[in-house]
Amino acid sequence: MGPGPVNADPRVLRAMSAQLVGQFDPWMTATMNETMALYREVFRTANDATLLIDGTSRAGIEAALVSLLEPGDRVLVPVLGRFGHLLREIAERCGADVHVIETPWGTVFDEEQLADAVRRVRPKVLATVQGDTSTTMCQPLSQIGAVCRELGVLTYVDVTASLAGNAFAMDDWQLDVATAGLQKCLGGPSGSAPISLSDAAVDVVNGRRHVEAGIRESGDDDRGERIRSNYLDLAMILDYWGPRRLNHHTEATTMLYGARECARLLVEEGMDAAVERHRLHGSAMTAGVRALGLVLFGDQAHTMNNVVAVEIPDGVDGDAARAQMLTDFGIEIGTSFGPLHGRVWRIGTMGWNARRDAVLTTLAALEQVLRAAGTSPAPRAGVAAAQEVYA
Amino acid sequence: MGPGPVNADPRVLRAMSAQLVGQFDPWMTATMNETMALYREVFRTANDATLLIDGTSRAGIEAALVSLLEPGDRVLVPVLGRFGHLLREIAERCGADVHVIETPWGTVFDEEQLADAVRRVRPKVLATVQGDTSTTMCQPLSQIGAVCRELGVLTYVDVTASLAGNAFAMDDWQLDVATAGLQKCLGGPSGSAPISLSDAAVDVVNGRRHVEAGIRESGDDDRGERIRSNYLDLAMILDYWGPRRLNHHTEATTMLYGARECARLLVEEGMDAAVERHRLHGSAMTAGVRALGLVLFGDQAHTMNNVVAVEIPDGVDGDAARAQMLTDFGIEIGTSFGPLHGRVWRIGTMGWNARRDAVLTTLAALEQVLRAAGTSPAPRAGVAAAQEVYA
Repeated sequence: MGPGPVNADPRVLRAMSAQLVGQFDPWMTATMNETMALYREVFRTANDATLLIDGTSRAGIEAALVSLLEPGDRVLVPVLGRFGHLLREIAERCGADVHVIETPWGTVFDEEQLADAVRRVRPKVLATVQGDTSTTMCQPLSQIGAVCRELGVLTYVDVTASLAGNAFAMDDWQLDVATAGLQKCLGGPSGSAPISLSDAAVDVVNGRRHVEAGIRESGDDDRGERIRSNYLDLAMILDYWGPRRLNHHTEATTMLYGARECARLLVEEGMDAAVERHRLHGSAMTAGVRALGLVLFGDQAHTMNNVVAVEIPDGVDGDAARAQMLTDFGIEIGTSFGPLHGRVWRIGTMGWNARRDAVLTTLAALEQVLRAAGTSPAPRAGVAAAQEVYA
Repeated sequence: MGPGPVNADPRVLRAMSAQLVGQFDPWMTATMNETMALYREVFRTANDATLLIDGTSRAGIEAALVSLLEPGDRVLVPVLGRFGHLLREIAERCGADVHVIETPWGTVFDEEQLADAVRRVRPKVLATVQGDTSTTMCQPLSQIGAVCRELGVLTYVDVTASLAGNAFAMDDWQLDVATAGLQKCLGGPSGSAPISLSDAAVDVVNGRRHVEAGIRESGDDDRGERIRSNYLDLAMILDYWGPRRLNHHTEATTMLYGARECARLLVEEGMDAAVERHRLHGSAMTAGVRALGLVLFGDQAHTMNNVVAVEIPDGVDGDAARAQMLTDFGIEIGTSFGPLHGRVWRIGTMGWNARRDAVLTTLAALEQVLRAAGTSPAPRAGVAAAQEVYA
């Protein structure tokens, strides 16, 4: 019940024990195409270029940034927590000219602030997170895409922590690139990063296309500045997932099976229903922890549905309490990074854990641990408050 | 029965359906440590820095090269097939000063040739493949490490295609960095890249250590030229796998389970026994295809045990024959890349497929397909020749 990675949906794990087939087997390429179609629904996009990066969510972020940003390109990064710092750090390593705006941890930017910064900096790319798990904040992003399109600025959004647990509409919001991971609301293990790119983003990436020696054919002329990474070169990865099926990496088939199953389950449920499920169980958890006397952290008007942060009560050893939750009840909850390390606990309700029994069991255990640590929550208050939300 | 990826050992797939635990759960970190110890046995090394990169074997290659090579650093790449070209291409993207020596596809370098080139070029790193699946050649490497150590040259070896199917002794051969994948002789799926680094290599990598903003502590001063990739930054990945457990990527737990099981099975079998198994079944397959009248490709004194290449007979449509093998018999065999595309078939006997029934069934099917394609192999010749090897 931490902020992710979380335990996976058993149906996803079962799909991952299926036997492998060759990477150019007709069934395999059909399965890759099916997975692309499923993730279009998950991202709510018609983007043809919707596929998987073989690595963790961080690999997806780096694939997007290293493929879009040439050395010297200007990028604007709004930082609302640790994962904004990560975008900055990756963009710096790409050699980009990185401009940062910051908001205190526990708050988000007003979209008008973002628009002002975009107009001032005039970046090639605006790169931001939607949900920053380090603070639990969910950055509003429904308006900024249109502003950026008007100015010819590409938008990149890291939706790893938020996708499927919070509203996200790539095309309606006019966003160009989004990357995710399986290990949060998608209910799978880390290790595959779904990504989607608009046609405009694909044009930028393909403007830097350099086909590998040894598989290059006539007409495969080098274009533009070579992308600094081979493994995360989206131009090459698009050729691998596209009709040419140009050999690149060896697709991580078991992760593909997992990613496909995550998306199948979500599409079967419906994306709106999945968001509503996260809202319901997140609300129940939030009501429960508040009723246990814990103080919520951050701007509650802008939290993600799938994770709540609470301040660790004075006099309570936060790490010892977390250890007791794990050892005595088999339940993991998290602390956070940087300025929030040891100051807050983060409790997730995401993916397979966005379930009534998971929420109520966690609250029952937390009441025990808080009482053992010397605080005095009203008996049964947490569970009762959550049950009221369910009622 | 292609050159890899191949179908996985069912025991590995079963291990991969296990439920996940949190990335800093004591059981998880103990499992990471256990996996490191197992891969020390697989690589035959005492290197403390033996771990997994979360990506395909290509991610392992790039992690090694981008972390070792600064822009302008000289690197020597002996090219014996497509995967030598890949090393060159990745090194170029790292900004290195890349020097290449080439040998015709189907041959290897004499180690004295390598030593001469190292003395002439005086690179920071000698980067080579051991087994190049594109040609099936296995580059001898038992002597070059000592030469390089004397000259202060680091050695990097890609053993993706060869490890566990052919002799490899990292420490005895005095090699500094090696990377692999699971999808060949290790009997698992693509998506995790075991890597091992000598202390000297770790020193080079840690000389470029830049801890990420947000998790940086006092004393974490930046050192040297920043590594161009965040995701594949070995200094950060070593901190994640090491005692500090500094947060980096979210470990791909299911792939870790798979990688651990691959190594457990090999260590249980014994590395010598695993190589001998590949030698036996590879010999049987080679005898079989030769008895079917097929001409072997390449210098037969230096082939890998786990894959054989044969010339496609004149008048036979190689792709149609491969399609028939797959459609009618459910058996995949491969062609190759570049100059060998459509000129050879490659047939693997690796990992879970290094088995008597797999070899004999493939030969029986191949006889049918060759005959249907208009050639006249002696009836039962392939199977009989392989059975003789087994006898």
